[in-house]
Amino acid sequence: MKRNKKERQSLLKETIEAKPFITDEALAKSFDVSIQTIRLDRMELNIPELRERIKSVATNNWNETVKALPIDEVIGEIIDLELDKRAISIMDVTAEHVFSRNKIARGHHLFAQANSLAVAVINDELALTTNADIKFTRQVVQGERVIAKARVVGSEKNNRTVVEVLSYVDNETVFSGVFEMFRSTQEKEGNES
Amino acid sequence: MKRNKKERQSLLKETIEAKPFITDEALAKSFDVSIQTIRLDRMELNIPELRERIKSVATNNWNETVKALPIDEVIGEIIDLELDKRAISIMDVTAEHVFSRNKIARGHHLFAQANSLAVAVINDELALTTNADIKFTRQVVQGERVIAKARVVGSEKNNRTVVEVLSYVDNETVFSGVFEMFRSTQEKEGNES
Repeated sequence: MKRNKKERQSLLKETIEAKPFITDEALAKSFDVSIQTIRLDRMELNIPELRERIKSVATNNWNETVKALPIDEVIGEIIDLELDKRAISIMDVTAEHVFSRNKIARGHHLFAQANSLAVAVINDELALTTNADIKFTRQVVQGERVIAKARVVGSEKNNRTVVEVLSYVDNETVFSGVFEMFRSTQEKEGNES
Repeated sequence: MKRNKKERQSLLKETIEAKPFITDEALAKSFDVSIQTIRLDRMELNIPELRERIKSVATNNWNETVKALPIDEVIGEIIDLELDKRAISIMDVTAEHVFSRNKIARGHHLFAQANSLAVAVINDELALTTNADIKFTRQVVQGERVIAKARVVGSEKNNRTVVEVLSYVDNETVFSGVFEMFRSTQEKEGNES
């Protein structure tokens, strides 16, 4: 059953408010209309495109700087960061990231985005991965946009910090990883050694 | 205590026979002589350089072809392969693989070498990583050569194959990983589905 334009635009607004990271493609599929229709709806409703939405949500709170590595060595684009707490990055999957044969994203690129975000979130000049437990839960293909969210979930003895990273395409989990990071000093809350 | 040349060359020959993957740098350190001395000793003893040694050991048994991906999509250079059994690759760590700040190899490059070897060892047109449990056991720095060895350790239900990868620099473990791989069909020994 197709909705009329007014109903659709009202529901579209609600949906984007609830899921700010949803793509035009996913909206088009869910509303059973063309991507072009979604774009026109967004323009009429004055809703910016996904990348702008993510940035505007994120940069409001982002006044920190990556410490553990130069920002251009982060894989993906960091759009939110609170050191020793959480970080978000986005990566567009292009031809260089996929197997030529089936256009499926290669595991090490998803790993690289997540791992470098786990490094970037650490509030220390030195952060190195000691081990990781990772899962690839859904195939990602060329053209998709992966949003990785890192969260510091705990710190252990011996200057170790545990970071959980979940990566999504259209709100669906495609990768999850728990990274144990070595750092040169304890978190600021902890004892300095 | 320095050995005389004859003693040193005799011991050098034994050492290389026992550890064919040892580098000239490691030999020089262990014999407390310069790298140049080791090179001259090798020339006099007619022992080829490391890369040639690895290749000659490996290619004797290597008459198989990578199936799961084009060989140029493997990260590192495959020097030995027996499908659904084992594989070896080498990767030289250069400036593009390290953090600019401390010249330590970035985790995702070691992961990429190991993961693509785990893909390459699978005797199937399609092989995808579903999960992995990995450890970075020693820092690797620019200029070092990483030798990754993959071994198929078991196959599970649902077209899953478990591959263990151990990566070494100078016989010291720098990375270990257990990769669970999804493939489109069971191994040849198993039931075809």
